[in-house]
Amino acid sequence: MRNIKLIISYNGSRYHGWQVQPNAVTIQDTMETALRRLTGEEPSLMASGRTDTGVHAIGQVANFFTSTAIPVQGFSKGLNSLLPADIAVLSAEEVAKDFHARKSAREKEYLYRIVFYEQRLPLLHDRAWVLRHRLDLEAMRLCAHHLVGCHDFSSFMASGSSVKTAQRTVSMIDIKRVVNQEYDLLGLEEIRIRVRSNGFLRYMVRNLVGFLVETGLGKRQAAEAVLVLEKRDRRAAGPCAPAGGLYLYKVFY
Amino acid sequence: MRNIKLIISYNGSRYHGWQVQPNAVTIQDTMETALRRLTGEEPSLMASGRTDTGVHAIGQVANFFTSTAIPVQGFSKGLNSLLPADIAVLSAEEVAKDFHARKSAREKEYLYRIVFYEQRLPLLHDRAWVLRHRLDLEAMRLCAHHLVGCHDFSSFMASGSSVKTAQRTVSMIDIKRVVNQEYDLLGLEEIRIRVRSNGFLRYMVRNLVGFLVETGLGKRQAAEAVLVLEKRDRRAAGPCAPAGGLYLYKVFY
Repeated sequence: MRNIKLIISYNGSRYHGWQVQPNAVTIQDTMETALRRLTGEEPSLMASGRTDTGVHAIGQVANFFTSTAIPVQGFSKGLNSLLPADIAVLSAEEVAKDFHARKSAREKEYLYRIVFYEQRLPLLHDRAWVLRHRLDLEAMRLCAHHLVGCHDFSSFMASGSSVKTAQRTVSMIDIKRVVNQEYDLLGLEEIRIRVRSNGFLRYMVRNLVGFLVETGLGKRQAAEAVLVLEKRDRRAAGPCAPAGGLYLYKVFY
Repeated sequence: MRNIKLIISYNGSRYHGWQVQPNAVTIQDTMETALRRLTGEEPSLMASGRTDTGVHAIGQVANFFTSTAIPVQGFSKGLNSLLPADIAVLSAEEVAKDFHARKSAREKEYLYRIVFYEQRLPLLHDRAWVLRHRLDLEAMRLCAHHLVGCHDFSSFMASGSSVKTAQRTVSMIDIKRVVNQEYDLLGLEEIRIRVRSNGFLRYMVRNLVGFLVETGLGKRQAAEAVLVLEKRDRRAAGPCAPAGGLYLYKVFY
């Protein structure tokens, strides 16, 4: 048995997230269907973590075991010929038997994209959060500074989630301003927020981004982040940012 | 009667181009349906030019006449509330009675996007031409130098087109290398080719890009451009680049 690690990119717009579920098309079941056709085996694909409905991936990682003799490069080519246009394997490699896409992951990094314009932007539909008002990046960075570290992130977890502990260590929140490439003609400003952590609670990045945006708009003070964390209550934080702006960016092993 | 000029952006993937045609959904008829609902008038929308099936727009321009009292800003907001997510009005303004989106245009500029990777890239599907082999930009720029100017572009016109003259003046072919924003994690290289002309023949940009790519790959010599232009024969040039990488970028008045 060989253990194969895949790096996968997808446009999540058409899917009900990664995880297999009844009566809905997901990335996992689309991938497993392609694997089944390629290998003739009954596949079980383990990902670094779920992504929610409408969330994209640039570098999702998943692994599976196979007894086939297919050369490792054959998995990217073979799967890409069977997968729909909005999912692709960027690379495949054979890894040690004990590699587990989720359990072996040290950290994961998500990217969230925000652009500023007064109208809808068709080429960024479901790809970035379009806001009308500019944000105060210094306030957001100050707020991010309070959120980085080992905290109980209950206030940023989807209500109704059941987890043993909501304690996670966020090692980085990086906020960068660039000129958007699709609409460079408009001089469109884009803000890219990257959040790295040893684990993410459900909706955690989108809830963090929602709160950061509130501070960037001046609706909340950056230092309120400390109180919001202490409250451990979802209602204490801000709104949830839309799914379409979120990308699973990279998994660290 | 007021004459209203719209700047329109769209993702052309779902459409059979701009121009109304029987039994196919086009940008123009989708726009005219929205205009009809907003104004109650029978609209006639004139664009700067057609775009083909699958071609996108960042700054398409169109105008129409209206007797309604709708304030000019109301056209962008009103139309955007009626249009699907892949079409939007970026701005609306009242212009002189004699403004005509096509006839008044001095020049138009198209953008073509090429990226380099060994696999399909889901987030760039139908948005950029994904090539496996890097291109020699200096050879392409040399070739572009031969193509700029006033020439008979018959060799770069879709075969079967009927036009009075294939003479056009290309004032700029700019070839720029950037790091792609969607896949910056991969350090993905993107080439952006912008072509500006006083008029475009059918498939002209895609045929010019196809030829430039052949020279970038070393399959053709840059100086062959001169011979290809002289031949006035579509078969003399290169392949046609895919529609999805092409964007109507800007119209100059």
